[in-house]
Amino acid sequence: MANAFPENSVGLVRPEVFHFDTPLTLANGRQLAHYDLVVETYGQLNAAKSNGVLICHALSGHHHAAGYHTEEDRKAGWWDHYIGPGKPIDTNRFFVVSLNNLGGCHGSTGPQSINPETGEPWGADFPTLRVRDWVATQHRLMQRLGISQWAAVVGGSLGGMQAMRWSLEYPDCLRHCVVIASAMKLSAQNIAFNETARQAIFSDPDFASGHYLKQGSQPTRGLSVARMIGHITYLSDDGMGKKFGRELRSGSFEQGNEEPVEFQIESYLRHQGNSFSKTFDANTYVLMTRALDYFDLAREYNHDPVAAFRNAKSKFLVISFTSDWRFSPERSREIVNALTRAGRDLAYAEIESPFGHDAFLVPNQPRYEALFRSYMQGISI
Amino acid sequence: MANAFPENSVGLVRPEVFHFDTPLTLANGRQLAHYDLVVETYGQLNAAKSNGVLICHALSGHHHAAGYHTEEDRKAGWWDHYIGPGKPIDTNRFFVVSLNNLGGCHGSTGPQSINPETGEPWGADFPTLRVRDWVATQHRLMQRLGISQWAAVVGGSLGGMQAMRWSLEYPDCLRHCVVIASAMKLSAQNIAFNETARQAIFSDPDFASGHYLKQGSQPTRGLSVARMIGHITYLSDDGMGKKFGRELRSGSFEQGNEEPVEFQIESYLRHQGNSFSKTFDANTYVLMTRALDYFDLAREYNHDPVAAFRNAKSKFLVISFTSDWRFSPERSREIVNALTRAGRDLAYAEIESPFGHDAFLVPNQPRYEALFRSYMQGISI
Repeated sequence: MANAFPENSVGLVRPEVFHFDTPLTLANGRQLAHYDLVVETYGQLNAAKSNGVLICHALSGHHHAAGYHTEEDRKAGWWDHYIGPGKPIDTNRFFVVSLNNLGGCHGSTGPQSINPETGEPWGADFPTLRVRDWVATQHRLMQRLGISQWAAVVGGSLGGMQAMRWSLEYPDCLRHCVVIASAMKLSAQNIAFNETARQAIFSDPDFASGHYLKQGSQPTRGLSVARMIGHITYLSDDGMGKKFGRELRSGSFEQGNEEPVEFQIESYLRHQGNSFSKTFDANTYVLMTRALDYFDLAREYNHDPVAAFRNAKSKFLVISFTSDWRFSPERSREIVNALTRAGRDLAYAEIESPFGHDAFLVPNQPRYEALFRSYMQGISI
Repeated sequence: MANAFPENSVGLVRPEVFHFDTPLTLANGRQLAHYDLVVETYGQLNAAKSNGVLICHALSGHHHAAGYHTEEDRKAGWWDHYIGPGKPIDTNRFFVVSLNNLGGCHGSTGPQSINPETGEPWGADFPTLRVRDWVATQHRLMQRLGISQWAAVVGGSLGGMQAMRWSLEYPDCLRHCVVIASAMKLSAQNIAFNETARQAIFSDPDFASGHYLKQGSQPTRGLSVARMIGHITYLSDDGMGKKFGRELRSGSFEQGNEEPVEFQIESYLRHQGNSFSKTFDANTYVLMTRALDYFDLAREYNHDPVAAFRNAKSKFLVISFTSDWRFSPERSREIVNALTRAGRDLAYAEIESPFGHDAFLVPNQPRYEALFRSYMQGISI
């Protein structure tokens, strides 16, 4: 059967497992003796090894950012609209590297992996991770690939936090830092949503204190509610209103009619929660939300983001979206202000968009695409 | 021991049960043969019976709006800051009536009551209610009290919806309608939060499809998560940030320190959820959130709020709070626009406040208090 992938797709891609057996000491002092990272790459590394672009994923992301896994696969990677030949992250120019972060549930070592000390799945005993731990493992991956400097490190949301941390921890290892819909730290409200999601998971009896794999259960109900909470915060009030409004899926408000009423938004959200809960690992969800909560760019710089960014050497592109209330444009302007005062070279755009926090993933936003493309085209390789 | 209640308190109050045995046909066609309402009153009904003020409560409210239940009681009713001698709703002038709505869990007939047909608690079989059903029962209560017209019907949030419904259903039975932090209908996002809260309850195995009383369990975990979700939406992002920020309750981010980190906001929210789940009924929570979702002021007026308000005869006071994102000032301005175009007499104030949706309950907001007091003082009795 003929390959019917779109012309501007990276096409068929195959994830690769990289094994690391140099022990890794984590931010909290614990040590991992060895670990695997699952990685996809798109495009070709040039001879100078100067065209590498690292993609950092967000809370529920993974390594499969672009292309298809089989000839029959019709569901492209999560950022396929922005990675490919001629797309903003142009694989005709760049060698794009995308991984599932440590602690993930898509093949990299995480809570579902076997704890070598017990022979059982790690479950809730998997170490708590910080963004800096991911950046450390990504740095090792870079070295393994023979790359000494990324053309760019790119990420949205939690991915943007990794990109910023790269610019501080390994300032010589990236020329550009692209930070989309992100923040230097979470607000109390952000943490509150994450904690409520975690409590939904913890309170599911099938969670079994995080050792559900051992007992053969899955906390799908708790994880589903957690995802519903998250999902609301990814969309904008207006966007949700325009898409669903108060449309009914079933039932009637006619007086005297006892048929139960269900709004479209209710069944949509439940569907989102249910699907997610069958494919994602609850311990990973807890781990990723904690990494989000714990991230505080300037904590080790006396809480001064200007002092923090004085350590950076890369150029920056910062993008925010008007209707994003999870990480609002105000959060991006804080990044921009700190970068400016630290004397960094930067571009900033606040994109008019109705898609809320999810906007960084949504296609067909001409201004976002044009700006993103134009910035990436300007990166010399 | 001497009575040490504050001077401007209504002091000791005693709830009274009113039994109604005229069958009530509900909006959905079902019928209740008889029911009880628990009621508190503050102040004295004047000879002309013209000074009655009805208080309509919000989602988790009840009849105990002011004063104390025992001499030792140090926790006043939920709106004590605004009801009492010399307070905005001045009990020296007004006879204030506050009830627990039908379907509630504080003594009025609801899911915890015995279903006369089965001899068992109603549980999830208690009829789904609409705001108009509450207003119908409140109208019967008014008649029972010998009142033919309220000086004012007053409510915040879901209570404001009841006040507006009063103005349409019984236009001759109120002279003033006070609508605080409310909306003519919920947005898709509002419904999404409510549905997520319900799913948290439904997914608790102890909920037992709503028949937990029969099986002797309580879905406290699910109700606790539901309350956490709600609570986040009652506070503003800024307010939460100012009160809790990223302060830690325990643990440390020091590198190499394995002690788990807990933010203040996390333990605060969990505490709110846990306390609530021990005193509130899960079926009532489901019922109240559905009534919120279902409310649509103008549904029976061809979705034209101007046409709806043409049926009203009362004067209106509408109040919103700048940081309220659950029912934002925009929602109140929609009410005001419709009232204006319908030719109604109205006053509107958008109060600068950091307290989010909860602002209508929070004391020591001089502009809110002054405006509320001044409007209520202007009501002739």
